[in-house]
Amino acid sequence: MIVVLKPGVTQQEMAKVVERIESLGLKAHISEGKERTIIGAIGDERLLADRTLESFPGVEKVLPILKPYKLVSREFQKEDTVLVVNGQQIGGRRIHVMAGPCSVESREQVLEAAIPVREAGATFLRGGAFKPRTSPYTFQGLGEEGLDILAHARAVTGLAIITEVLDPRDVELVHRYTDILQIGARNMQNFKLLTEVGKVGKPVMLKRGMSATVQEFLLSAEYIAAQGNRKIILCERGIRTYETETRNTLDLSAVPVLKQLSHLPIFVDPSHGTGRWDLVAPMALAGVAAGADGLLIEVHAHPEVALSDGPQSLKPQKFAALMRDLKRVAQALGREI
Amino acid sequence: MIVVLKPGVTQQEMAKVVERIESLGLKAHISEGKERTIIGAIGDERLLADRTLESFPGVEKVLPILKPYKLVSREFQKEDTVLVVNGQQIGGRRIHVMAGPCSVESREQVLEAAIPVREAGATFLRGGAFKPRTSPYTFQGLGEEGLDILAHARAVTGLAIITEVLDPRDVELVHRYTDILQIGARNMQNFKLLTEVGKVGKPVMLKRGMSATVQEFLLSAEYIAAQGNRKIILCERGIRTYETETRNTLDLSAVPVLKQLSHLPIFVDPSHGTGRWDLVAPMALAGVAAGADGLLIEVHAHPEVALSDGPQSLKPQKFAALMRDLKRVAQALGREI
Amino acid sequence: MIVVLKPGVTQQEMAKVVERIESLGLKAHISEGKERTIIGAIGDERLLADRTLESFPGVEKVLPILKPYKLVSREFQKEDTVLVVNGQQIGGRRIHVMAGPCSVESREQVLEAAIPVREAGATFLRGGAFKPRTSPYTFQGLGEEGLDILAHARAVTGLAIITEVLDPRDVELVHRYTDILQIGARNMQNFKLLTEVGKVGKPVMLKRGMSATVQEFLLSAEYIAAQGNRKIILCERGIRTYETETRNTLDLSAVPVLKQLSHLPIFVDPSHGTGRWDLVAPMALAGVAAGADGLLIEVHAHPEVALSDGPQSLKPQKFAALMRDLKRVAQALGREI
Amino acid sequence: MIVVLKPGVTQQEMAKVVERIESLGLKAHISEGKERTIIGAIGDERLLADRTLESFPGVEKVLPILKPYKLVSREFQKEDTVLVVNGQQIGGRRIHVMAGPCSVESREQVLEAAIPVREAGATFLRGGAFKPRTSPYTFQGLGEEGLDILAHARAVTGLAIITEVLDPRDVELVHRYTDILQIGARNMQNFKLLTEVGKVGKPVMLKRGMSATVQEFLLSAEYIAAQGNRKIILCERGIRTYETETRNTLDLSAVPVLKQLSHLPIFVDPSHGTGRWDLVAPMALAGVAAGADGLLIEVHAHPEVALSDGPQSLKPQKFAALMRDLKRVAQALGREI
Repeated sequence: MIVVLKPGVTQQEMAKVVERIESLGLKAHISEGKERTIIGAIGDERLLADRTLESFPGVEKVLPILKPYKLVSREFQKEDTVLVVNGQQIGGRRIHVMAGPCSVESREQVLEAAIPVREAGATFLRGGAFKPRTSPYTFQGLGEEGLDILAHARAVTGLAIITEVLDPRDVELVHRYTDILQIGARNMQNFKLLTEVGKVGKPVMLKRGMSATVQEFLLSAEYIAAQGNRKIILCERGIRTYETETRNTLDLSAVPVLKQLSHLPIFVDPSHGTGRWDLVAPMALAGVAAGADGLLIEVHAHPEVALSDGPQSLKPQKFAALMRDLKRVAQALGREI
Repeated sequence: MIVVLKPGVTQQEMAKVVERIESLGLKAHISEGKERTIIGAIGDERLLADRTLESFPGVEKVLPILKPYKLVSREFQKEDTVLVVNGQQIGGRRIHVMAGPCSVESREQVLEAAIPVREAGATFLRGGAFKPRTSPYTFQGLGEEGLDILAHARAVTGLAIITEVLDPRDVELVHRYTDILQIGARNMQNFKLLTEVGKVGKPVMLKRGMSATVQEFLLSAEYIAAQGNRKIILCERGIRTYETETRNTLDLSAVPVLKQLSHLPIFVDPSHGTGRWDLVAPMALAGVAAGADGLLIEVHAHPEVALSDGPQSLKPQKFAALMRDLKRVAQALGREI
Repeated sequence: MIVVLKPGVTQQEMAKVVERIESLGLKAHISEGKERTIIGAIGDERLLADRTLESFPGVEKVLPILKPYKLVSREFQKEDTVLVVNGQQIGGRRIHVMAGPCSVESREQVLEAAIPVREAGATFLRGGAFKPRTSPYTFQGLGEEGLDILAHARAVTGLAIITEVLDPRDVELVHRYTDILQIGARNMQNFKLLTEVGKVGKPVMLKRGMSATVQEFLLSAEYIAAQGNRKIILCERGIRTYETETRNTLDLSAVPVLKQLSHLPIFVDPSHGTGRWDLVAPMALAGVAAGADGLLIEVHAHPEVALSDGPQSLKPQKFAALMRDLKRVAQALGREI
Repeated sequence: MIVVLKPGVTQQEMAKVVERIESLGLKAHISEGKERTIIGAIGDERLLADRTLESFPGVEKVLPILKPYKLVSREFQKEDTVLVVNGQQIGGRRIHVMAGPCSVESREQVLEAAIPVREAGATFLRGGAFKPRTSPYTFQGLGEEGLDILAHARAVTGLAIITEVLDPRDVELVHRYTDILQIGARNMQNFKLLTEVGKVGKPVMLKRGMSATVQEFLLSAEYIAAQGNRKIILCERGIRTYETETRNTLDLSAVPVLKQLSHLPIFVDPSHGTGRWDLVAPMALAGVAAGADGLLIEVHAHPEVALSDGPQSLKPQKFAALMRDLKRVAQALGREI
């Protein structure tokens, strides 16, 4: 950590900063330049977190040198994390597509999506039983009944399932039904929920918050890992910007950035990332080209009557066409789907 | 709701849109222009929520006419909501200042802030017992012990207290201790938590999410109100933008905007809104000038050893000076503090 | 255009809105709903631009139905625009890569980039003679000498050239040297400059402004087209968001969005779009997968001594490797490079 | 400047960084920590600008210590800059309000605004003769005729005038008519225009770009100062964010931030900053409370027929009421209007 002092800082002010640094077992190294004096704090700067040095008189700014996360970092683990779920390797050479409806509405509706997506090459079935909805007046999901419908679809199709959990009180319940627990964007900093899923030995798909930096995203993954659960998949799903043509701005640069900083698999969700079905195919292809390990895609047999997210759902036929394109692009990049 | 059709839409596509609108009990009104045909859906368009019409073939875009929230809107209730807490009227002529440390650390530390802020004119004591922290490795709050310390400070000073609740499982507990339940920015869309505090008959301070629109903010307030709890205070605390000189960008325009759209009291938090103690005073003054009903200000007797948010905490003496300025500005605007 | 009236609007206020609409030759159509009355303005709503109806008493909001741009829109021209420059078709099946140094520094430096990029398959040479620099104290470009160096490189390599013009007074000069005139992001709304390049019969590459919406971007293209110059190429180069891991956030969704709204070719600049050479390859591949008609890539033989943008420049060898990958991905998508 | 090296950096890579630093006359100071080695570059780091060290192999990141601007900084000049224009001191104890129509339309229209704003206490008349418009199809201003109308209004009212210049070719012309040259937000990084107004010995009002950081804003002011013209006024006018209730988000925190970093006077434009006349008054008051030295406010006698920006223009009567409130708030803060 580098502490930049204000011009005109007093000896006494400087001494207090040094004292604080040394009180935590770090070494303070003073360097006087022509316009500024700086103090380097050498050692585990994470002990100096919480920006407290910024509140010392005479301090202009504090520049961290180290990353604040550890277990999920590439420095901590050089080789890629590969998870095995339902016999499928996630984070390896093969790219996985998890597809299905936004909300679970009925057995029939789920199967109408699940069967064709499996045939087209999807390896996981997605679907929401608990739905985080902006308005209290819209469909909130079927709850446990929805989980039961997903379990039925798994039994019929053999596809492993992924579904969202919203409430720390539901982790145990959802865990009993699902193969992967999903933490949605709105809950990326619901630290109590992160802690709960961290205690469960089941893979977690963590979606990036709507305005989360890459660093905050990895710190949220660190919450899960710090509880002992290292089976984490990251998912870029679009960030909030000023642009209104799309519901969110899919930040595909985050894919190679996360690959550098972390060993965890990274997925892309072009459905939420754009909010428009007609953009899902190009952005799914782009996600794979950017290096994603998998995709999360909303598919509904009848988007116009979907209880949520109809406008961003692909029909099964369009999904099948996309899968054919994805396979060719994956192959061109030395991977497979 | 106005449905704009694509140029070249077929009669059959148009008929399906009309059918959908009428199936929900609304009236469809077709209007053919030179370049576009539009359909007006007349009736309670909230029934058409979830943007499903956007997924119909032939539809270019859907423009809502009505607001999606109701109970918290100025249309639903014309006169301002005035809450009475601990004998204090919130939302009336008097502006309230709620001050105290970011985190509760000890009885002594809380009193060292509570006593001078009361003397300077603050009417509520703020302090966090449960802390939502970006990193799992930083101080997470004292939990129930912290609540107990706050209760002690209330007994000593007579100040009512406000403290944050993070977990739906803790609502009952926090409710037993506090006068106002605070929902933090990161939990503005934690719908399970909103639902729980909506079931409790105690005032709730709802902070705006870091990248929440005004509309989403009011929809989150609607979640609480829809459960029967109308004692809600809104709080602007800075939004995320590209600017890095400040931790967040305090969106003071939201104050008069919210005053127009809603009858609820609106507070401003210049401490989190800027992240820098040296900006708290000007932004507190600006918040009051913009029409806020109150302020939330972090005060710590020794910011340089605070366990969180030291850099944005005022020392008691600076807080007292600010209160004197605030009183003069409030008076110039026909209000009082 | 739909004019939504406030609840409680008076007959007189409504009459004034109608009068205004009709005074411009449009037809006003009133529709009374349960909660709101709306007025549809039927005809060329562009005459009602400038949002003036929003300032009428009794008006709540105004919702435009039509797009404010025309010549550059897909509605105006259904088929893709294909430009021919130096015998190369831009906007057709073949994807073009324009590569070279950020700044023109010397004959030798330009050739050290130009020769290898041509060999690797680039079809245009890029390089800046006039540089828009954030600080007045950094290298501002060689000016006409730089143009001369580019012309020399064209003579040697046969590559057509593209270079930026900053000043309306320089359009004539730059025009004499270059094959494509580039308008940089900072000048996307320099309307005087747009007007000048619109008067010249030479292709213009228009880069998206740092915080321009897609609609503003197309309106800037319309400025050029309205002067008679329809030879326009659009270029997505990253937008400003809160994320700091990358210099900008490359908005690849803008590629398919622009393809729908406009008939113009669209390029992607992954060098400026990320600001980091190690992200250029994945984002170039992603750009092509998203449907771009071409790429703009910074290449420098010695990035560590470049006078500008070293950190985002590829070395020739890495560029050649990228071109091989790009060719395979383009082919997988039915295109070629 | 602090250069943070990657873990595993080689001696040779480190030597090259040191060599580069020393080749520019700076001193390199190596400090080896447990997890990272860092190199401090001691001396005038502005020589190392352009981020070139980031492109060296083995470099993880580069952290600047010094500010990149100089002449406009508070370090360079401790006391506030006070400009005298038309006998009025700008930047001193008195707060100035510059008011008038967005566009100059006719002699009558300008006087209908100018006379009442002078009576209400405004000290400058604003009005645009050259208008930067997003669409090529909207009113672009009267040009020199508009300047002539402004000069006439000055003669009639005695108010000094401020008007925008868009084109480097017009600087000489506008200079002949106006008292203050305005650079609009879209031209904040039109460096050729900044250079031209820097050559003229007349005060310049520089508006913050729509997505400019505070640092970029000050660097643009530095462009003007570097040409010898130190008579600069800064103006915050709203930045682009995701929020759509307001046209821009007025960043009032920028006022105290700029006051700390620079000695220049700082104004606030609540008309463009919000885009809505009904928010102008609260945000004007908030701007003054935040410490602004002046305000820029759009006033039009008949906003509903204004050729531009009607929705954000105040009628003279509302402006007069606002001025009364402003005076009281200014007085409460120890200033005057």
